[in-house]
Amino acid sequence: MTEHLSRRDIDFLLHEWLDVTSMTSRPRFAEHSRETFDAVLDLSEDIATKKFAPHNKISDQTEPYVGDDGKVVLLPEIGEALRAFSEAGLIAGTFDEELGGMQLPNTVARAAMSFIQSENTPTASYAFLTVGNANLLTTYGTAEQIDTWVRPMLEGRYFGTMCLSEPGAGSSLADITTKAVPADDGSYRITGTKMWISGGDHELTENIVHLVLAKAPGGGPGTKGISLFIVPKVLADGTRNDVALVGLNHKMGNRGTTNTLLNFGDGTFSPATESGAVGYLVGDLHQGLKYMFNMMNEARIGVGFMATALGHAGYRSSLEYAKVRTQGRPVDNKDPESAPIAIIEHPDVKRMMLAQKSYVEGALALLLYCAALLDDEQTGSPETRERTHTLLEVLTPIAKSWPSQWCLEANSLAIQVHGGYGYTKEFDVEQNYRDNRLNPIHEGAHGIHGLDLLGRKVIMNGGEGLGVLVEAIGETITKARAEGDEVAEHAEHLAEAVGRLGQTTAAVWAPGDPKLALANATAYLEAAGHIVVAWMWLEQVLAADAAENSDEDFYQGKRAAARYFFAYELPKTTAQFDLLESLDRTTIDTDSAWL
Amino acid sequence: MTEHLSRRDIDFLLHEWLDVTSMTSRPRFAEHSRETFDAVLDLSEDIATKKFAPHNKISDQTEPYVGDDGKVVLLPEIGEALRAFSEAGLIAGTFDEELGGMQLPNTVARAAMSFIQSENTPTASYAFLTVGNANLLTTYGTAEQIDTWVRPMLEGRYFGTMCLSEPGAGSSLADITTKAVPADDGSYRITGTKMWISGGDHELTENIVHLVLAKAPGGGPGTKGISLFIVPKVLADGTRNDVALVGLNHKMGNRGTTNTLLNFGDGTFSPATESGAVGYLVGDLHQGLKYMFNMMNEARIGVGFMATALGHAGYRSSLEYAKVRTQGRPVDNKDPESAPIAIIEHPDVKRMMLAQKSYVEGALALLLYCAALLDDEQTGSPETRERTHTLLEVLTPIAKSWPSQWCLEANSLAIQVHGGYGYTKEFDVEQNYRDNRLNPIHEGAHGIHGLDLLGRKVIMNGGEGLGVLVEAIGETITKARAEGDEVAEHAEHLAEAVGRLGQTTAAVWAPGDPKLALANATAYLEAAGHIVVAWMWLEQVLAADAAENSDEDFYQGKRAAARYFFAYELPKTTAQFDLLESLDRTTIDTDSAWL
Repeated sequence: MTEHLSRRDIDFLLHEWLDVTSMTSRPRFAEHSRETFDAVLDLSEDIATKKFAPHNKISDQTEPYVGDDGKVVLLPEIGEALRAFSEAGLIAGTFDEELGGMQLPNTVARAAMSFIQSENTPTASYAFLTVGNANLLTTYGTAEQIDTWVRPMLEGRYFGTMCLSEPGAGSSLADITTKAVPADDGSYRITGTKMWISGGDHELTENIVHLVLAKAPGGGPGTKGISLFIVPKVLADGTRNDVALVGLNHKMGNRGTTNTLLNFGDGTFSPATESGAVGYLVGDLHQGLKYMFNMMNEARIGVGFMATALGHAGYRSSLEYAKVRTQGRPVDNKDPESAPIAIIEHPDVKRMMLAQKSYVEGALALLLYCAALLDDEQTGSPETRERTHTLLEVLTPIAKSWPSQWCLEANSLAIQVHGGYGYTKEFDVEQNYRDNRLNPIHEGAHGIHGLDLLGRKVIMNGGEGLGVLVEAIGETITKARAEGDEVAEHAEHLAEAVGRLGQTTAAVWAPGDPKLALANATAYLEAAGHIVVAWMWLEQVLAADAAENSDEDFYQGKRAAARYFFAYELPKTTAQFDLLESLDRTTIDTDSAWL
Repeated sequence: MTEHLSRRDIDFLLHEWLDVTSMTSRPRFAEHSRETFDAVLDLSEDIATKKFAPHNKISDQTEPYVGDDGKVVLLPEIGEALRAFSEAGLIAGTFDEELGGMQLPNTVARAAMSFIQSENTPTASYAFLTVGNANLLTTYGTAEQIDTWVRPMLEGRYFGTMCLSEPGAGSSLADITTKAVPADDGSYRITGTKMWISGGDHELTENIVHLVLAKAPGGGPGTKGISLFIVPKVLADGTRNDVALVGLNHKMGNRGTTNTLLNFGDGTFSPATESGAVGYLVGDLHQGLKYMFNMMNEARIGVGFMATALGHAGYRSSLEYAKVRTQGRPVDNKDPESAPIAIIEHPDVKRMMLAQKSYVEGALALLLYCAALLDDEQTGSPETRERTHTLLEVLTPIAKSWPSQWCLEANSLAIQVHGGYGYTKEFDVEQNYRDNRLNPIHEGAHGIHGLDLLGRKVIMNGGEGLGVLVEAIGETITKARAEGDEVAEHAEHLAEAVGRLGQTTAAVWAPGDPKLALANATAYLEAAGHIVVAWMWLEQVLAADAAENSDEDFYQGKRAAARYFFAYELPKTTAQFDLLESLDRTTIDTDSAWL
């Protein structure tokens, strides 16, 4: 079986490029070394291959269902894989030693999780959601809350969810109607319905810790009134809390992760005198959205990783296929008696492989770079922390949306390389494609990130957001220019595109009309994404050029993928910037009755 | 329920644009009138809604399987729907009255079939394959073959297939190994394995007429040796021919159409002394590929229709959803107490609707235009027939590949408009997307059409192919320039893009190196496709402007979609032409070991 994520690429990015071992000079990571990092990756890779990969397809074909007893029935292998992952300490990877964690850098822990995501995204998601939940609680929860809820999550005995969306409030959280009313004992009673809750019910663990957004009295309208609550499936005394599974959603892909509609406080599990599910306030009242956004920023980067892991899976499967499948002859060989060649030798198949490589390895570089920024923000030099924070804020919408868009496109190309076989369930690539189609939808639908990037992030603190990004890219450009040759040419193309990004940002905001400025925010998001990934490719080529045996196939592959990206992909931004600078009104001037 | 294809749009294209009623002045269509055309469309629309739509989802969820008796088990509704379609005379729509047909123009018959394709593509495919098969046999078969095999197909008693691919020969037909050996009675004995055969086995009809490519002795190597045979499932005397179902493929979508692996002459159904399945030669020996290409050209346009019909289905479903689903507020209204708006009012949703509209209605225009060219070629003025033939040859690779690519993208946008709901099986759009992913694969994988267009079609007869296309587009540009205003601006943009198409074609062929010229044939295909569809939009705007009530919403919608296409889509070709003109060697210079 092909491994779906290249360890060689992970090692290149972590060590030859990001130099994560240098983080061991920071007090938090002092116990670590290249050896301990390698051991964590070895372990995760091993568990991914042995425990996650084998049930990926069967889990897709055996959808979760609700049994006669009202309990969710899942493939047993899902629980076994997750137990192996948590027993190895990998759910707790980044957490404090005091909590049973390993105090790993995010960069290493995320890379470790990528192995299980690339072999079986739906099963990996339970772990991913639990880590996000535990992260939020260790940041904003009380010591008691951490003891009660976080410790069992890090041991893999409880899993976590995040409960934001409701039937009438998906992208628009201001409209949630779930209510929280204070009870006499200091806890709250929660009533309402939450929708699209991944991992919202199952029997994998003793308990499920829901983090629920709800409106508590006195917070004012819209998002201001939102507070955050811990609402466990089972209360500390072992009785069932009033959280009821209404139903499971049946999805195109990602089927091993249950996706649920949950009722809080509808009386299913509590006596008629009770008036809601028991919830415990996290942090301060009416600050819930702020806390949740902290978690969501990480979750968004996590979704980027998920999309990227699936992209890698398709890339590696189609690469293996293209090297063994023979068909046809080169265009300049018309001799029908000559032997057919491996399809990878056809230029159009090579194009599809280079495109996939440039998308999935470019995305992985971006995501590990963001993970490293998160580490720098938490444990790096205090002087640069603010700048790091700003850069991460600007990159987050891109790190979520770009991989979701382009690694899905990579999965489509992986199908195409397989021809008819790719459309059948005999191969993995059709499942990768279906699984990945989720990613442009959840954790903020694609268009939302355009509004976030152009409407908030680049203009934050009087344009500091864009400034920090341009400065960071500029540093790479300077290095590349100094190197000369092809990499300097790439640098010139990137410099030109970055120049247009700045001009365009100024142009769309010049009239001072947010509606007009944001009319084509998605085009802006996509153009900025291509620029950022081109930057990641320039960084990778610089690292490849600096390698000891820099003419090895691996490094040549990096150069070829970068060449592809600069020749085929980056030029796409010109048309997007032209559109944006023209302040095109097509969408806003189209009457919906015309459609 | 939303109808998945707009009758209003079909009427606009057929009557206000293509003026199909004018074809009734041709002797073949003399019995027809606007009324008979309308009656055919009414009938098909009615059958589509009543017989095809209701089982589309259940057919997806109830995959065909092979029963204990070795027979294929299909949902009964599939047979019922197809019987209704054939009993209404619609399978025989374009055929001679003498054969029980209606002698309809292709343009009208294709439009009629689009209704059933948009409601249920997999069921419609049995009819579509049968029409293609019957067309080939009426063109190249003997009178006896037509009587024996075509008549029952037109009555819906037999269905047809085309058997080209083999396990080792998909895109490369030169490598097929199926053999045909002459028998004493003038028939042939066929042995070999055919793969990916749609409709290759079922119990829907009394018989299945396979058209099989096989190599008969004496034809020379490669494609030269290929001949075409009728190989029925059941022989004329009622005994079973030796055509055995080896298995069904399980697919991501398009599941109602059985897709089969068939063995010819493996002894399953014949005594050990026999040496193959009985086959009857069609036309002359060793001319099989030529005949099949005739059918394939039509089938390619048919695949374009299939992709387009699915694109329409998604467009119409998401349009209905976007008008009723409320969420969020305009960016310039921050009052959380105000009522949420229908999502269609958000500019990014409008963008996704305009994109879908521009893709699916642009594609439908192109396909009906091609159908009209086919009519002109068969029944139009003899002086223009050669030019018409050339234009159709040039447009065929685009008419197949462009809708397959962009109507799939439309289906992805339809999911996106639905948010999380779009990813569930509760709505239709996820199935549209899975069904449509087939279309870039079959009837020539996407990349094959780039080689066909750039390597053969545009350069045929010393560049006559491109010349005819440029001339045809030029006529529209001239008309649009004369009209002035916005349409004249579109015309200027189109003229510029057409100029680059000519320059680029010359540039890639200038070095005289086919390998280099064709290295980026797919980019050429995609750029040429965008130009052709922009042309179709210019044509539609001219027709809208000429309409009596040309400021009605319907015509404004045409103008808005054209505006979208010219602002957001056509400019994408610049980067593609730049790449092509640079004679970029990235793909051909990448060593496969680097990947």
